[in-house]
Formats: sequence, C-alpha cells, structure tokens
Amino acid sequence: MRLAAVLLFLATISAICHTDGYIEQVTQQIHLLRPRSGAAGYRLKDVDCLSWRLAVETNNVRNWKLVPEECEQYVGHYMLGKQYRKDCEIVAHSAIEYAKSLTLVGDGKDIWIFDIDETTLSNLPYYARSDVQFGALPYNDTKFNEWVAEGAAPPVPGSLRLYQTLLPLGFKIVFLTGTAERFKDIRISNLKAAGYYTWEQLILKGEADQGTSALVYKSKKRTELVDSGYRILGNLGDQWSDILGDNSGNRTFKVPDPMYYIS
Amino acid sequence: MRLAAVLLFLATISAICHTDGYIEQVTQQIHLLRPRSGAAGYRLKDVDCLSWRLAVETNNVRNWKLVPEECEQYVGHYMLGKQYRKDCEIVAHSAIEYAKSLTLVGDGKDIWIFDIDETTLSNLPYYARSDVQFGALPYNDTKFNEWVAEGAAPPVPGSLRLYQTLLPLGFKIVFLTGTAERFKDIRISNLKAAGYYTWEQLILKGEADQGTSALVYKSKKRTELVDSGYRILGNLGDQWSDILGDNSGNRTFKVPDPMYYIS
Repeated sequence: MRLAAVLLFLATISAICHTDGYIEQVTQQIHLLRPRSGAAGYRLKDVDCLSWRLAVETNNVRNWKLVPEECEQYVGHYMLGKQYRKDCEIVAHSAIEYAKSLTLVGDGKDIWIFDIDETTLSNLPYYARSDVQFGALPYNDTKFNEWVAEGAAPPVPGSLRLYQTLLPLGFKIVFLTGTAERFKDIRISNLKAAGYYTWEQLILKGEADQGTSALVYKSKKRTELVDSGYRILGNLGDQWSDILGDNSGNRTFKVPDPMYYIS
Repeated sequence: MRLAAVLLFLATISAICHTDGYIEQVTQQIHLLRPRSGAAGYRLKDVDCLSWRLAVETNNVRNWKLVPEECEQYVGHYMLGKQYRKDCEIVAHSAIEYAKSLTLVGDGKDIWIFDIDETTLSNLPYYARSDVQFGALPYNDTKFNEWVAEGAAPPVPGSLRLYQTLLPLGFKIVFLTGTAERFKDIRISNLKAAGYYTWEQLILKGEADQGTSALVYKSKKRTELVDSGYRILGNLGDQWSDILGDNSGNRTFKVPDPMYYIS
C-alpha cells in the first residue's frame, strides 16, 4: 500500500493522521513530553508492540519521541483497558509490601516521594482525546496546559491506595513534579479532589530550574531533602528520570507509561 | 478447594508438587538462583502473570524466590514461545542502535560488558527439563552444575547478533559472570561453541568473592576495569544486579528473565 493510501485508511478508521515526523527544535516546557532532543528517533520495522512496551518500561529504549506508528492503537487499548490498571495495581502492591516491611524512625523525617503526572494524577482523559491520541500526535504545550488548568485529573490506579496506606504507617509524603510553579494552586486543588489530602511538601519546578532536565532537577531537589535530614524510603514515578539519579531513595518503583518519555 | 486437593490436582496435571515454601537458610552458591535471603516471599492473590512479569522486569518486585504458582505454566510458555525471542531481539536492536551511534576512542579501552547466564548463554534447555520446570522447583546446585559442566548452552536470542556487531565496530568484549573459576575451561569451550570466539577478558567469580552478592561482586570487578583505564560503554545483563551498582556503564540493557532472581 502506498503511503497516501495507508494514511487515508488510518484517517478513515480512526481519524488519526500523524505525518509530522520528528520536530528538531528543542523547547523546554513545563511538561516536556517526548523531548525533541537527544539521540535519533526510535523506529523498528515490524515492531512487536508488547516487546516495545517492555523495552520502554525497562529503560532499554530511551529518548524516544513518539509511540511507533504500528503501536498507536495498541497503546490506546492498553491505556484504556484492564492491563494498564493491573500493571499499576501490582506496582502499588509491591510498594505497599515494602512499606509495611519497614520500621520507621518516626521523627517525621521518613518520606515517600511521588511524582505527579501519570504517577499520582492521571492525564488519561486528556491523552484519550481525539486531538491528542495517546501522545501519537506531537505534544501541544498550550492544549496540555489548558488541561492542567482544569484541575480535573483523576488518581492513577493503585497510587491513591498506596498513598492511603503510607499515611497511617507514619510516612510523610513529598510530591516532586516537573509542573511549573504557576500551576501550584490548581495542582493543590486537583490533588485534594483526587483524594490526596495532605503532604509534607509539594515541590514544583521554579523559574531557575526551567532549563534543566527532569533527571538533574529531581536529583537536586532530592539532595536538598536529604540535606534537610529527610530519609527517602520510597520513590514512585512513571519516568526513569523520576527514579534514577542522586538520592533516588532506598527503593524505587516504576509506574507504567508507554505514552511519552521525559529525560 | 482444600490445600491437599489443590496439590493433588497440580501433581496430576503437571507432576509438579512444590510444597517447600521458603527455605530460610542462606547458602552462597556459584549461581544463586532465587536466593532464600532477603525480604519476605512475594505472593499475590489472583496475580496477572503479564503484570507480574512486567513488575519483575522493571525491578519493582525484588528478592522473589519462586515464580508465583499461578504463573508457572505462563513462564514456561513465554520462555519457549515467540514473545521471549521478540523481547530479546528488541533489546539487541536497541543496544546495536546505541553502539552504532558512538564514536570510539579506538585505543582498545572501549569495552562492552556481557553477563553470561541468560544474557550470553541460555540455560533454557536445562530450565525446560521436567525436573527443573523453569525454576518452579527449588534450585538444585548439583544438577545445575552438571548442566554447566556439559558446556552445551546455546546463545541467547539477539545477544550473539549484538556481539557480532560490536566486534567490527571496535568494542572489546568483557564477560563478567557469577560462575565459579573452576568452570573456566568448560565456559570457554561453551562460549566458543555458541559463537563467541574472542574476548578481552573473561571474569569468573573467585574463591575470595564467594560470600558477596552479585551486585557487590560485579561492581567491584567493573571498578577494577575502570581503574585499569577501560571505558564501559555498554553493559548487558538479565539481572538488575548485573546493571546496577558502581560503574554500571554509559548505557545498560536488561535482557528478560522471569525464571529466577539474583541479588
């Protein structure tokens, strides 16, 4: 089938028509989805989508920009279906088992770090939109920010249960997010509406850190926490840049996310 | 169903009857499959085996001792079927893409580290045996060593292709394994028979390191390599203890392995 025919076919069945390829220009954004920087785009002929997802989740495939063309529908079905929920639940289960196995010092310095997007709050209602297509269409800063400003994101499956288990065990909660400071109020109301009603700190990305990668920014903030006497016992994130780097925590947990990559 | 009935049923359909539970005693072995040390056993009610496998591969579930009862058949089918091969191939593909993107110094100090078991050589012919059952039965040191002594392990899918690509690019190969020194000769002949015909170093676990975990032992050996002037550009392993720790390498790659866990 020629390219035009393929595209027409795709447009017909799903109203998706992604032809942009990769945008070269690097723009630092509050929520840098599929950064345009880094290594060459990742495209495999006849990719097996389950294998691709495993490779993403294990950090074997890095700096990828878009879900492979062949896997756009797969990712949509995965995210809306049972498997994503089950995959999230087993992460929460593992984290809860670990948390319960610990004996806390109990001086208010035992903390658990949560990333926010796709870890604590789910942007799935946004990603499932026909003009977003689970991130198969290029990231649109304006649209995404409008969605964030609605403050309507629901909790990620399992994560609220983990949060609710951690509090009575004595953990203090720290939210560490790449969201810009200017969204602070709406994020607070969104977190509370989703069931996350208390925390020790909510760390958003200030102006000074706008040029840095998530890995560097989050490492720096965690180091500041450790220098303040906090002990990072657990750390939950959907991106490897949430859970790698300095002072990543005694145990880290990777929440699934095959929709975008943040370095 | 009562426990006895469940066990009878399992014995009937598959001649597997694993009732040992967890053995508490820690024994350091050349190839420590499912160590009996560490945190409590990991058992989930109604576990989704694909979710469990993802949790294992992402290092969310750690220190597990046996494949969950419900997933024994799943793991067998996975390992013998197409998905395992596809999952391995995409790892090799990613590693090759990365290796080709590099410009080597070319002074003979650019190295790629390979673990051996389930990374370079596959023990699948052993694990598929009815008296091993993909590791669903407790690890048997004597039997496994007899298998290693045969020197008949085939290459892991994709890994030989990666190896064959790395050599002409100028990489020096280092095999770093938990196998004991006394198996050196047979491992050499097995590697050669499987197609790995040359290397810079083959590092086996000496007497002095027998008491240490894989993570500590491999970190130490990698640090020695770096201190000798080598640059670890890539590192391929089936266990997270192969690719975490000190001097883990510029890029690490995780080969799938849902059969056993080594800390």
